[in-house]
Amino acid sequence: MAYRVSKRTRVEPAYTRPMERHPTRTCLARLPGGELRRLGADDLTEIDGLRAQPDTLVWLDIASPTADDLALLRDEFDLHPLALEDLEKRRQRPKVDAYDEQQMIVSYEVLPATEADREFDLGELHLFAGPGYLVSVRWQESPAMGDVTARFQQRPDAVGRTPGALLYTVLDAVVDGYFPLIDRLSDRIEDLEDRILDGSQTRGTLRAILDLKRELLELRRTLSPQRDVANALLRRDLPLVDDTSAPYFQDLYDHLVRVLDQLDLQRDLLASALDANMSVTSNNLNAVMKRLTAFTVILMVPTLIAGIYGMNFDFMPELSSPLGYPFALGVMAVAMIGAAVFFKRNDWF
Amino acid sequence: MAYRVSKRTRVEPAYTRPMERHPTRTCLARLPGGELRRLGADDLTEIDGLRAQPDTLVWLDIASPTADDLALLRDEFDLHPLALEDLEKRRQRPKVDAYDEQQMIVSYEVLPATEADREFDLGELHLFAGPGYLVSVRWQESPAMGDVTARFQQRPDAVGRTPGALLYTVLDAVVDGYFPLIDRLSDRIEDLEDRILDGSQTRGTLRAILDLKRELLELRRTLSPQRDVANALLRRDLPLVDDTSAPYFQDLYDHLVRVLDQLDLQRDLLASALDANMSVTSNNLNAVMKRLTAFTVILMVPTLIAGIYGMNFDFMPELSSPLGYPFALGVMAVAMIGAAVFFKRNDWF
Amino acid sequence: MAYRVSKRTRVEPAYTRPMERHPTRTCLARLPGGELRRLGADDLTEIDGLRAQPDTLVWLDIASPTADDLALLRDEFDLHPLALEDLEKRRQRPKVDAYDEQQMIVSYEVLPATEADREFDLGELHLFAGPGYLVSVRWQESPAMGDVTARFQQRPDAVGRTPGALLYTVLDAVVDGYFPLIDRLSDRIEDLEDRILDGSQTRGTLRAILDLKRELLELRRTLSPQRDVANALLRRDLPLVDDTSAPYFQDLYDHLVRVLDQLDLQRDLLASALDANMSVTSNNLNAVMKRLTAFTVILMVPTLIAGIYGMNFDFMPELSSPLGYPFALGVMAVAMIGAAVFFKRNDWF
Amino acid sequence: MAYRVSKRTRVEPAYTRPMERHPTRTCLARLPGGELRRLGADDLTEIDGLRAQPDTLVWLDIASPTADDLALLRDEFDLHPLALEDLEKRRQRPKVDAYDEQQMIVSYEVLPATEADREFDLGELHLFAGPGYLVSVRWQESPAMGDVTARFQQRPDAVGRTPGALLYTVLDAVVDGYFPLIDRLSDRIEDLEDRILDGSQTRGTLRAILDLKRELLELRRTLSPQRDVANALLRRDLPLVDDTSAPYFQDLYDHLVRVLDQLDLQRDLLASALDANMSVTSNNLNAVMKRLTAFTVILMVPTLIAGIYGMNFDFMPELSSPLGYPFALGVMAVAMIGAAVFFKRNDWF
Amino acid sequence: MAYRVSKRTRVEPAYTRPMERHPTRTCLARLPGGELRRLGADDLTEIDGLRAQPDTLVWLDIASPTADDLALLRDEFDLHPLALEDLEKRRQRPKVDAYDEQQMIVSYEVLPATEADREFDLGELHLFAGPGYLVSVRWQESPAMGDVTARFQQRPDAVGRTPGALLYTVLDAVVDGYFPLIDRLSDRIEDLEDRILDGSQTRGTLRAILDLKRELLELRRTLSPQRDVANALLRRDLPLVDDTSAPYFQDLYDHLVRVLDQLDLQRDLLASALDANMSVTSNNLNAVMKRLTAFTVILMVPTLIAGIYGMNFDFMPELSSPLGYPFALGVMAVAMIGAAVFFKRNDWF
Repeated sequence: MAYRVSKRTRVEPAYTRPMERHPTRTCLARLPGGELRRLGADDLTEIDGLRAQPDTLVWLDIASPTADDLALLRDEFDLHPLALEDLEKRRQRPKVDAYDEQQMIVSYEVLPATEADREFDLGELHLFAGPGYLVSVRWQESPAMGDVTARFQQRPDAVGRTPGALLYTVLDAVVDGYFPLIDRLSDRIEDLEDRILDGSQTRGTLRAILDLKRELLELRRTLSPQRDVANALLRRDLPLVDDTSAPYFQDLYDHLVRVLDQLDLQRDLLASALDANMSVTSNNLNAVMKRLTAFTVILMVPTLIAGIYGMNFDFMPELSSPLGYPFALGVMAVAMIGAAVFFKRNDWF
Repeated sequence: MAYRVSKRTRVEPAYTRPMERHPTRTCLARLPGGELRRLGADDLTEIDGLRAQPDTLVWLDIASPTADDLALLRDEFDLHPLALEDLEKRRQRPKVDAYDEQQMIVSYEVLPATEADREFDLGELHLFAGPGYLVSVRWQESPAMGDVTARFQQRPDAVGRTPGALLYTVLDAVVDGYFPLIDRLSDRIEDLEDRILDGSQTRGTLRAILDLKRELLELRRTLSPQRDVANALLRRDLPLVDDTSAPYFQDLYDHLVRVLDQLDLQRDLLASALDANMSVTSNNLNAVMKRLTAFTVILMVPTLIAGIYGMNFDFMPELSSPLGYPFALGVMAVAMIGAAVFFKRNDWF
Repeated sequence: MAYRVSKRTRVEPAYTRPMERHPTRTCLARLPGGELRRLGADDLTEIDGLRAQPDTLVWLDIASPTADDLALLRDEFDLHPLALEDLEKRRQRPKVDAYDEQQMIVSYEVLPATEADREFDLGELHLFAGPGYLVSVRWQESPAMGDVTARFQQRPDAVGRTPGALLYTVLDAVVDGYFPLIDRLSDRIEDLEDRILDGSQTRGTLRAILDLKRELLELRRTLSPQRDVANALLRRDLPLVDDTSAPYFQDLYDHLVRVLDQLDLQRDLLASALDANMSVTSNNLNAVMKRLTAFTVILMVPTLIAGIYGMNFDFMPELSSPLGYPFALGVMAVAMIGAAVFFKRNDWF
Repeated sequence: MAYRVSKRTRVEPAYTRPMERHPTRTCLARLPGGELRRLGADDLTEIDGLRAQPDTLVWLDIASPTADDLALLRDEFDLHPLALEDLEKRRQRPKVDAYDEQQMIVSYEVLPATEADREFDLGELHLFAGPGYLVSVRWQESPAMGDVTARFQQRPDAVGRTPGALLYTVLDAVVDGYFPLIDRLSDRIEDLEDRILDGSQTRGTLRAILDLKRELLELRRTLSPQRDVANALLRRDLPLVDDTSAPYFQDLYDHLVRVLDQLDLQRDLLASALDANMSVTSNNLNAVMKRLTAFTVILMVPTLIAGIYGMNFDFMPELSSPLGYPFALGVMAVAMIGAAVFFKRNDWF
Repeated sequence: MAYRVSKRTRVEPAYTRPMERHPTRTCLARLPGGELRRLGADDLTEIDGLRAQPDTLVWLDIASPTADDLALLRDEFDLHPLALEDLEKRRQRPKVDAYDEQQMIVSYEVLPATEADREFDLGELHLFAGPGYLVSVRWQESPAMGDVTARFQQRPDAVGRTPGALLYTVLDAVVDGYFPLIDRLSDRIEDLEDRILDGSQTRGTLRAILDLKRELLELRRTLSPQRDVANALLRRDLPLVDDTSAPYFQDLYDHLVRVLDQLDLQRDLLASALDANMSVTSNNLNAVMKRLTAFTVILMVPTLIAGIYGMNFDFMPELSSPLGYPFALGVMAVAMIGAAVFFKRNDWF
């Protein structure tokens, strides 16, 4: 189930992706010599044996966990009751929880949007790291996980050297997914700015600003605690993060700070865009009023002249002149054109 | 008495719920073997004996305390004079006060609203935890307390293992009550946004924005110190929170942070909604002015033509033509229709 | 002299209350047995003897100090030159200054307003606490001091147990004075909101918002350092605050935090009210423009019809019909009424 | 050269006061017995001898330093190359730099404005304090320095007791100069508020708001690091600030906090004033539109009536009545007056 | 490749300067006696020998690194894989990364803008400092680097005393480049303010405000982490920054704080300018509406008079008077002129 960044920003989720109906389990192991071992879905009972082996790393990846999976996690990996509850409830905040030797990490990755008016979905990811193992649980197809699986199979000795190295690889793949999203959001903000300054389509623009602001707020709400997670992994004296992997986690932290910097910049630019929208609206109003004034004057002056020659005085010498009528029409035309030129020159319409 | 989130945001409360007239006292005890013991309202003198027993947990729950109750609390549980004063005055800020071995915790739970224009009431809750006992005092019927009582009676050995475990259970039930409220508030904000972008009902919308903002502010004011309470219970080296219960209090803290995150998000969305409302109002004004301009031009052009043919010149050849009148009417119609089409095409009305 | 929260928000005060001309000195002592001793204005030379006595508490309260009083303070209580300078200059920020064994505390209490357009005045209060004595200096009649004097005389052994207990009693009386003020400010904000949403009296409303904002800002500026004072008394390892009195000072701190919470809430509500005021003004403008448009159309349509029948064509069959005139009037009336109904239905006036 | 708070808020200064052409050097010394010694501009070579004397304080004050002065400072007082560079470049941020035994302090004092549209100039001041000496360098005539010089000459044993005491005296004189400025700014804000609420002179008001905001921002930018300087002098374990002088530096810090409090208050009041200005402008617009509507209706109604009686129907009985004309005029007058009274009553003009 | 501050604010860069095609490598060394040694592009194999020599400083400066350069850096200077990845990806946040004995510093310098609508480009700069060497890598022609090269060649013993001294010289040259930029931005803000208050060119002004805001935001985003870099170099106990160079790095930090102060000031001034722009637009609208009202009244009054004398009553004595017509024209003229004078006097047009 994806942490949907749609109009429904509920604490408890209401929407479920159909894919949840296809639960899968993948278990990969890096054996002492750096060899790769892949357990089928039916061989999961062998996990116990593998974990008992020294210098072996076991990675169990579960998509859309079933009750059986939860039981396996509880029995084989000693998950804390609260961690199991989180797995059942989902929608957790990104966090690191330390239970004795086990670290539980909650993270969110970017998924392609399932609805047309959104830029992205978010996919929840629970990771459990302990001595010799990493367990990853998610509720949707995951591009990041697919990527890490491929790399693990290619270079089990590098990617699967330690649980910390594997954890870094997963989190790095997750964070890399945010960069193209940030670029797309930048494009949308620029488009918005251009549309606003062109003065076109103001009603739709307002909706676009609100939608974009909501997406930025949601994204910030997810990424800010993820940065804290990266920082906590660095700062706390965890066995996961040894001297060799510390620069990598520092790098992860730097990437998250970079993304958050961009989000803050985009929020500020969006705020400016909203202000600019107000200004453009006010300017447009000024322009409309100037036109109204110009039209009023242009039409009222000849109306007044016509009114004058419509008066019924007995002695109005112009009335009896054969040139009176064309003269009056000429005066009207001159007055109208003169006023029009005047207002045009002063940029009133 | 409920901490009313109504228009009256007074420091001192003015409103009292009628239920206060039905004070109740419930005393439950978990005996050494895990057995449950329930004391009737008349057996409260036995509390002293129960507390003297080793490995026993006594839970005294008081709704709408009377002077007798306060005397009992003072004599039997050695409440500090300031704690008693707080019970009499109520309307305390959520806090943890440490008096020697006793911890006093003030919290607020969500209650159904008693007035139509509000989403919720808040119910004050004072908790006193010490070695072997927990005392809870409140001034209204409490869904959270009903829930905890039921669970205590079902599993006295789990829920009533230690005062810390019981305290956690109570606070967890309190915090769980905030989640559906947050969802309802999210719905209201979305409705507001839709109403604003539809451009309908602006005066009522303004009132709704102000009311919602007040409710969010009140809620934040109550929840932010509750988060600090959860943090203080974790950070301070209290005998209440031992190694086993620490992850649970951490979980409580995480939940409160999640709720506060949502409140902050909602506050930002509401601010955007207010800005959008201003923009919509300005856009509407533009639309009105464009219409005024269009109507003015459409009506003034034929008026001018009529004025011209109302002039009294002796020599106006059109006047004597039998087709003059229909021709003039035609010119007027063409001018009006032309102007209308022009303004319609430019989206001016 | 009161720290006036008026339009004159000067650093240096310009206004002096006439009462300053009636300086008074009151000296009360709690003798070893808990007995009360009251020194007349002429017996102040005995202070030295009283202070020499063991287990005695001397409280000297000075209103509107004269040069003699300052000399007495300097000689008898060893006030630091800077403390004396502060007494002469007044208008100090609430603060705790530690001079060896002596603590100097500056606080402000709420006084009834002396001008009609304000809600409150503030009265400055300097307190000097040291072993066995408390000195309080102020420049106006003080409700808090009157209250504490009465309580000291009734229960000298409780209120006057230690300088810390007496100091707490004074500061508690000062802080209690803020609660009714906060309630009055809440009322004013609600009234403002109602007036704004009713759409009535906008010019006066603006003045009221500005005045209220100024009062809230002034109040926050005074109360925020007072909270820091309470915190400093708690945190610093002062002999004044022993284990017994620590919960009381904690309570004082909690009260100040509660008041400041309310002020922040009120500031946010006031900001919303100002936004709402802008929205209402914009809505009103929309309403005015709609009416203008409606009136223009309603009056111009019959004018056009009249213009048509005022044309001077020779062949206008309607003109010679006896029913032409009533018919034309009828058409005008129908057009006017039709337009009026149309605009009324669309809520344009 | 003054740190000009004008429209040119450059990092590098472009403006130089003519007074810079009159460099002066003053050297005062407090000899062991408390005696005063004044060195003429030609006796500066004796500084070396004076500094060698025990228990002597040498104060060298330089206005508009020349290359010779810088050489003297480098050779005689061992100024760090960076400190010399700062003296040459000026426009430093207020700061404390510690070079071994020497403290360098940069501060700014208030000077009378040299341009009509500003309230104040700022004068840069560099101070170098070390064992037995204080050097002050500035680039303009300095009221604070004049004041301190007079006091040093009157009471060399007090003001010149230690370099710390002299440093305090200088900084105290500098800070005292900010108080009257704050009062003048308060006056200007009040005048602005009154002008805004009166609805008068909006264009000039806007310029005044912008100018005042710029001055407040500049002032805050200068004073906020000066507060940090005072704090650093207190917190760091410097030989300059001994136990006796610590309360004085605390007092200095309190004064700066007080001034900054006022600046923050003024910034908030100014922001309110700007909001109020927007509100007043909107209200004025409403008033103008109401008048336009009223005038339109008042003039169009009689125009319509005139149009009706200008129709050319053959059978219009009123036309032939001798009272028709006065009657029509009467109807027009009644309609106009009625409309005018109606709009007046509803406060539309 | 320059970190472009254009509309494309992407995380990943899309734009490459052509100059990247001209990679250059410069290697300068300060030999033990203070002598300068310059290695040609073909002698880089000698770096190894130079580095082995005691008391020698090697500075390798690479512009637009090729794959060969990266290999050299990896092999000769033991760059960490993450540092190499950063060199390949570029667009890093300013930071200090510590890899064992090597410090990696990322900084940005100001470059002349390559597009007309921008004030500046930013050039990325990666620095690697370790015992006896500094490596600088960049992707564009660099004024700062040219400056440092010249100074190194003139005074190799001073500038190249230690890697820390050389690093300071480079960073100082980088920071110095920001000062003239800040001045140019100040000028643009002042111009904007003047244009806004003059009321001229509002559409272009809005674009200019948005552009300037974007540039300030980008600049702040680059400079704020650079300040943190300077602070980290000071605070962390690095071998690079010894006691002698500490004041220089402090000075660097002070300069960055000064620039950031200015940026904050400019951001506040720009925000004021935007508010002022809104106010001016509103004022202009008021002015337009006043003119519309004035024109309406001025033209409608004579139209009404003409309408009256166009009525067809049989008995209208004025009509038969020979002076009727001129009299009517006179009344119209008087009414028009009277209204015009009235509105002019009240400043309505």
